[in-house]
Amino acid sequence: MTQEGWSRKDLVGIADLSPQEIQLILDTAESFREVSERPIKKVPTLRGKTVVNLFFEPSTRTRSSFEIAEKRLSADSLNFSSSSSSLSKGESLIDTALNLQAMAPDLIVIRHSHPGVPHMLAARLPSGVINAGDGAHEHPTQALLDALTIVQHRGRLEGLKVSIVGDIEHSRVVRSNIYLLNKMGAEVTLAGPRTMMPVEVEKLGVKTVYTLGEAIEGADVIMMLRVQLERQSRMAFPSTREYFNLFGLTRERLKPAKRGVIIMHPGPMNRGVEIASDVADGPYSVILEQVANGVAVRMAVLYLLAGALQEAE
Amino acid sequence: MTQEGWSRKDLVGIADLSPQEIQLILDTAESFREVSERPIKKVPTLRGKTVVNLFFEPSTRTRSSFEIAEKRLSADSLNFSSSSSSLSKGESLIDTALNLQAMAPDLIVIRHSHPGVPHMLAARLPSGVINAGDGAHEHPTQALLDALTIVQHRGRLEGLKVSIVGDIEHSRVVRSNIYLLNKMGAEVTLAGPRTMMPVEVEKLGVKTVYTLGEAIEGADVIMMLRVQLERQSRMAFPSTREYFNLFGLTRERLKPAKRGVIIMHPGPMNRGVEIASDVADGPYSVILEQVANGVAVRMAVLYLLAGALQEAE
Amino acid sequence: MTQEGWSRKDLVGIADLSPQEIQLILDTAESFREVSERPIKKVPTLRGKTVVNLFFEPSTRTRSSFEIAEKRLSADSLNFSSSSSSLSKGESLIDTALNLQAMAPDLIVIRHSHPGVPHMLAARLPSGVINAGDGAHEHPTQALLDALTIVQHRGRLEGLKVSIVGDIEHSRVVRSNIYLLNKMGAEVTLAGPRTMMPVEVEKLGVKTVYTLGEAIEGADVIMMLRVQLERQSRMAFPSTREYFNLFGLTRERLKPAKRGVIIMHPGPMNRGVEIASDVADGPYSVILEQVANGVAVRMAVLYLLAGALQEAE
Repeated sequence: MTQEGWSRKDLVGIADLSPQEIQLILDTAESFREVSERPIKKVPTLRGKTVVNLFFEPSTRTRSSFEIAEKRLSADSLNFSSSSSSLSKGESLIDTALNLQAMAPDLIVIRHSHPGVPHMLAARLPSGVINAGDGAHEHPTQALLDALTIVQHRGRLEGLKVSIVGDIEHSRVVRSNIYLLNKMGAEVTLAGPRTMMPVEVEKLGVKTVYTLGEAIEGADVIMMLRVQLERQSRMAFPSTREYFNLFGLTRERLKPAKRGVIIMHPGPMNRGVEIASDVADGPYSVILEQVANGVAVRMAVLYLLAGALQEAE
Repeated sequence: MTQEGWSRKDLVGIADLSPQEIQLILDTAESFREVSERPIKKVPTLRGKTVVNLFFEPSTRTRSSFEIAEKRLSADSLNFSSSSSSLSKGESLIDTALNLQAMAPDLIVIRHSHPGVPHMLAARLPSGVINAGDGAHEHPTQALLDALTIVQHRGRLEGLKVSIVGDIEHSRVVRSNIYLLNKMGAEVTLAGPRTMMPVEVEKLGVKTVYTLGEAIEGADVIMMLRVQLERQSRMAFPSTREYFNLFGLTRERLKPAKRGVIIMHPGPMNRGVEIASDVADGPYSVILEQVANGVAVRMAVLYLLAGALQEAE
Repeated sequence: MTQEGWSRKDLVGIADLSPQEIQLILDTAESFREVSERPIKKVPTLRGKTVVNLFFEPSTRTRSSFEIAEKRLSADSLNFSSSSSSLSKGESLIDTALNLQAMAPDLIVIRHSHPGVPHMLAARLPSGVINAGDGAHEHPTQALLDALTIVQHRGRLEGLKVSIVGDIEHSRVVRSNIYLLNKMGAEVTLAGPRTMMPVEVEKLGVKTVYTLGEAIEGADVIMMLRVQLERQSRMAFPSTREYFNLFGLTRERLKPAKRGVIIMHPGPMNRGVEIASDVADGPYSVILEQVANGVAVRMAVLYLLAGALQEAE
C-alpha cells in the first residue's frame, strides 16, 4: 500500500517536508476528493486500522474533518478529549500516550496547546503521529488544504503572491503556511497591526506590511486570519470596530485587487471583525472549498502514513 | 432506493406532512422493527452515508436512539455537541452548518433550543435535515413513534380519543403530536393546570380540560408529559407534591378509565410527580415500547430521506 | 458461537466465577491477543451487535480499552457519560437503563461509583452486563488482565506470592484481584499504611503487612496501587513526600526482591508518589503489557458473553 516517494510515519510539521513530499500529498488528496462526491462515500483503504483523535483543545472543524476522513477510509476512530482523560487525574501526557500506544493504535492525531508535543510523541511512539495543531507552532494539514485550494483555482503555487492578514503572532496556521508557500516558490507577505506581528518574522523569508491596502495590492491570494475574540482581554487592539476599520476585508477595499484574486479564511470566521459578510459569501471567497479540501487532504495524509507504517513492519 | 410516495429530503415537522406520508413512515418503521430483533442487528442500507448528530441541547434518549438507528443502517455517525463546537468561539450557527455541509454529510440530525432552526438549515443546505426537537415547537420523530405505538396497540389512529396531560406550554413533544393525531383523524384533548396551558391553544383543533378526571374519562390513550423540574424556579406551580395531587396519574385515578386504555410518556419520567410507579410499570403502560419504536421510526426516516436525496442526484 | 464451558450473560464480579471460568477467559484472551498485532486489527465476531459503554465516572483507560476491543470485534459501540445523560434531568438509573434496554443493546459495559449497580442491572436486564468498576467493590476485567500478565511472565498463578501495596481501602481493583488470586491458588499479601487498610481485611484470606520491605521480600509479583491525589484533602497521610518515603517503590528498595519479580500498576501512575520512574520504566515493569492485555481480556469477555446470549435466544 506504500505510495512511492513517501516513507514518513508521522506528519508533525511542514518544516520537515521536501517540495516533492508536499506535491505528493497534494496529488494524493486530489485523487481522494472524488470519494466524498460519490453516493457511497467510503473506501476500504484503512479497514482494521485504529486511529485515535487526541484533542487537548476544543475544535469542531479540525476534529470532525479528521473523523470524517477516517470513517471514509473505513478506519476505526476513537475520540479523546482532555476533559474526559486521565490527565485530570494528574497523569503525565507521555504516560497517557504510552498507555494509548499499548492498545496498538495505528495512527494518533493530536492537538495540544504546547508547541513540540506532537514531535515528542512521534519520536517516542511506534504509531504514526499527525499534528493537528501545536499551539501557534505548526498545523500542517491546514497549510496543505490551503495549498490544494490555491492550486485548484490558480493552477500552481510557484510565483504566486500570497498575503496573510491579521493576528500573525497568535495564529495557529500562519507558520505552516509560510513554510509551505516558501518551499513551493510562492511569495508571502504578512500584514497586520504592529502589535500582532512577531519580532524578526522576516527571518522566515517573508515581507511584512502594516496596512491592508499594501496586502491587497498585487496579491493572487489573500488569507484572512481569525481575530481571537476569546483572548480579547489581552488583545493588542482597542476594539473590534477599530480592528475592522483598519484590517477588516470589505468588498470596497477589494476594488483595487488583482483580477482573479481568491479570499481564504481558516475559520471560524468573525463576520464584521476581520471579514465582511459580502466578502465571506462573495464571488472571490473559496472558504467553504477549503473545508471540503480539508477532508481530502486528511484522507491523503492518513493513507500515506498508514502505507509507510505497513512497509516498516 | 427511493420509496414510492416519498420525495422530501428533510423532516422538519409534522405540520408539512400529508396523512399519506405519515402512513408511509409508519409502515416503513414497522418493517424496520424486525431488524432490532435479529441476532445480527444491521442492514447495509446506508453504508457509506455520513450522518451528523448536531445536538445543541443535552439528550440521552433522542441522540442515542438516532445513533443506534444510524449504526443499524450501517451509516457513519458523527456526534457534535455545543460545548465542544466552534459556537463557543462565537461562530454563527449557519457558519457552523455551512462548514459541516462542506464536508459532505448526507444527513444532519439537529436539536436546538430555538424554534425554526431546522427549517432554516433545511432551506440552506443540500443535506437532508431531521428535526430532533426545536424548542417547544416540533419534535416529529417523537410524534411518529408515539403514533406507531398507538397503532400497534389499538390497530388504528382514526377515531381514537387521545388525552395529553401536563405542562402543555413547555412540552417539546405536544405540538407535533397534535398535528399528527389531527391529520390522522384522532381527537385530542389537552389537560393541565391553567398556568401551563398556552393561550388560544384550541385554535390547533383540540379540546382543553383542566382536571385529570376529565382527561381520563373516555380516553383510548393517555399521554403524560414530563414536569420540567430543572425549570422549577419558574414553575407555574407551588410544589411537585401539589402537582402530583392534582395531575399525577395513579392506579386509583385510572379506575374509571376506558377498557384497553394505554398510558404513554415521552421520558425521562419523574416518578411520583406526573406519574406514579404503579402506573409507569403497570399493565397499561407502553412507555418502553415507545422507546423501542423510536429506533424503528428513526431508521425509517433516515432511510426515506436518504432515498429521496439519492434520487435527486 | 458459544464457547464450551461458558454460560453467563454477565460479568459482574470475580467473586461469582469458578477457577475454570477464570481459566477459560484467560485462554480466550490469549487467543485474541494476536488480533491487535495484525495489520488488519479486526475480526467480524460481533458484527451487528450493539455495545453500550455507560460510564458514570470519568475514565480514559478503561473506556477506551473497551471501545477498542468492541471495534476490533466489529461491534457497534455507543458511548454514554453521566454529564450528557438524562440523569442530569433527575431520571433514575434504572429508568435510564430500562430505556437503553428498550433500544435492544446486546451488551452494556457500566462503571458507577456505587457498589452493586452492575449486579442490579444484570438482574433486571436481558442484555449482558459487564462491570467496569463499581466503586471500591469489583473491577473484574482489571483483575483478569493482571492475571493474564502474570501468567505470561511466570507461567502460572498457582503458588505465586503476590504483594499488593498502597491505598488498599479505596482501591477500585484490589478486591477483584484478591478474589481471583485466591481462587487460582496464589498467596496474597496486602501492604500499606494502617490508615489505608480496611478493618478485618484478613477475612478475605490475605496476609497484611505494614512496611514496604515486608511486601517486597519473597514476592513474585508486586502490584503498586495508585494514591488518589484527587482525594488528598481526606488523605490519610501527611504528604505525598512522606508517602513516597515509606511506600514509594524505588530501584534501591527493590534490591532484596526475589529474582524474576515483576512490577505492576493499574494506572494512572503518580510518578514520585507510589512509584519512582526508574521502576515504572525499568526492566521489571510490565505496566504497559497490562494495558495491552486489557484489550485482549475485554475482547474475550465480550465474545464469551455474546456467545452465551445467542445461545439463550
